[in-house]
Amino acid sequence: MTQNTVDTNLLLTILDLSGVWSFAVSGSLTAMQKRMDFFGVLIVAFATAFGGGTIRDILINRPVFWMHNEAYLYILFIATPVAIIFRNYLQYLRKTLFFFDTIGLGVYTVIGMQIGFTWGYSPMLAICLGTLTACFGGVLRDLLCSEIPLIFHREIYASICIVGGAGYVTMMYFGVSETVTVLVTLFAIIIARFIVVRYKLSLPMLHLKDNMPHA
Amino acid sequence: MTQNTVDTNLLLTILDLSGVWSFAVSGSLTAMQKRMDFFGVLIVAFATAFGGGTIRDILINRPVFWMHNEAYLYILFIATPVAIIFRNYLQYLRKTLFFFDTIGLGVYTVIGMQIGFTWGYSPMLAICLGTLTACFGGVLRDLLCSEIPLIFHREIYASICIVGGAGYVTMMYFGVSETVTVLVTLFAIIIARFIVVRYKLSLPMLHLKDNMPHA
Amino acid sequence: MTQNTVDTNLLLTILDLSGVWSFAVSGSLTAMQKRMDFFGVLIVAFATAFGGGTIRDILINRPVFWMHNEAYLYILFIATPVAIIFRNYLQYLRKTLFFFDTIGLGVYTVIGMQIGFTWGYSPMLAICLGTLTACFGGVLRDLLCSEIPLIFHREIYASICIVGGAGYVTMMYFGVSETVTVLVTLFAIIIARFIVVRYKLSLPMLHLKDNMPHA
Repeated sequence: MTQNTVDTNLLLTILDLSGVWSFAVSGSLTAMQKRMDFFGVLIVAFATAFGGGTIRDILINRPVFWMHNEAYLYILFIATPVAIIFRNYLQYLRKTLFFFDTIGLGVYTVIGMQIGFTWGYSPMLAICLGTLTACFGGVLRDLLCSEIPLIFHREIYASICIVGGAGYVTMMYFGVSETVTVLVTLFAIIIARFIVVRYKLSLPMLHLKDNMPHA
Repeated sequence: MTQNTVDTNLLLTILDLSGVWSFAVSGSLTAMQKRMDFFGVLIVAFATAFGGGTIRDILINRPVFWMHNEAYLYILFIATPVAIIFRNYLQYLRKTLFFFDTIGLGVYTVIGMQIGFTWGYSPMLAICLGTLTACFGGVLRDLLCSEIPLIFHREIYASICIVGGAGYVTMMYFGVSETVTVLVTLFAIIIARFIVVRYKLSLPMLHLKDNMPHA
Repeated sequence: MTQNTVDTNLLLTILDLSGVWSFAVSGSLTAMQKRMDFFGVLIVAFATAFGGGTIRDILINRPVFWMHNEAYLYILFIATPVAIIFRNYLQYLRKTLFFFDTIGLGVYTVIGMQIGFTWGYSPMLAICLGTLTACFGGVLRDLLCSEIPLIFHREIYASICIVGGAGYVTMMYFGVSETVTVLVTLFAIIIARFIVVRYKLSLPMLHLKDNMPHA
């Protein structure tokens, strides 16, 4: 293991734990908007923070991450009550939250891809794994809270993961070091999402001429 | 294997099969309220009875229980038609049903935890597994029937599993035998749910001062 | 490996890829009815085409099919843009689409059962696996698009898989060769669905005398 790998691993671990924190806060706030009780909020936070990585690990058939490192659960059990206690301050911090949610999105994309490559999957599958890791927790959160999954209101959410993943692959192809690739992809995803939301950008919506009842 | 373990295993097997029966009936009734046909009812009963244990087994990476012991499927294939045939009697037996559903809740919590410990997981993870086993089938049932998951209308549902699980861990910590721990936890969960529903108890709902559109 | 098995494998491979194509088109059209963007459509197509087989492979604990053969992803990445480009022609081809969707249903049932038997499962479990493979992708598609799962509007969908699966088992019991069994089951499912839809057949809906609030 080179020094570079050690640095990258440390970097990924720090980012990973901050991703769990961010998504736990995002899940808690959504659940509180639905006026759930403490345990309801905890379960939605759990699904949001762990859903994507769980699917990723099951697909790869590696041990599920939060079942083998209790640090993840501890972070969830700290982040959720903190989000509950400070709930009325957090809503005035909408931008802070958006910032954390966006960090989570970038981090989970990068971690999903990095694990995909570590397990020997192709670039295309690594992008699939990164996107699933980043987006599935939010889909679960919305299903549990009976919302139309946000990913499809604002599909740009998933689009940024996919395009960011393609950038990751391109940098690796040109021999950029892992640490640099991870950091550049991460910041590109975060900055892209800020720009997209700030300027209300969106991809063209596809639609059919008439609504066709699906046969 | 001690006599005690044999007894506990026999006890757990009996409870397990009665849990499948109860949840199959619960799923069948929900599906019939949605006016499904025979196979639709069967599929919802299947998802309700097997959903929680399937997630548990996939997370642990042990063989999925109903794929390796056909007794579970036979019980499903008996319980569902029986529920269909007696559907108009069952609704006058609302309390009987509630009784069975509650038994299922208690049994699945205890079995999920017991399997968690058998596979060497920590108390915290065992409680997670117990809660997932008890609650996930009901979430699936409600998603398939397009209801807001009941677990979040009446979150006390999951809360009782989590608190019951904490009691299980406490008894084990103080060296109480497995059979006693299982039985006490089971009856505590059942009695707690009866009291909660009878006296319409609930935990305080958490909410935000204003609805904050999720950034 | 006999000549017969080679033929059957080739047959199943061809059918399998055509099943992915059909379900990718079905998912794309549903997503475009919801006015999603390109990546949203791609994700719904992905879930529809791969959902059923993924659950099947996870339950069996065999490698997930699309993670180990990129041909499936290539077909998805060709079928989805083609469906998008020709979307306004496809809706005039409603019968063509229904034809493809029905082929997918038959193919996935047969492939799910065939894999179940290959892995040594009983006829009853093979039918469960076939039905899950054929129907789960559509359930996912509808959850992601926030529809009441179509399987339960028109439950005959799953019923045909289950009855077709029973026919498969019966033919195998009487020693019919695998190729013939696969082809007969496939065409029986396809023809049955055409007849059912053409003559608006349905199984009787089960309902309760009064709506009983679920205790």
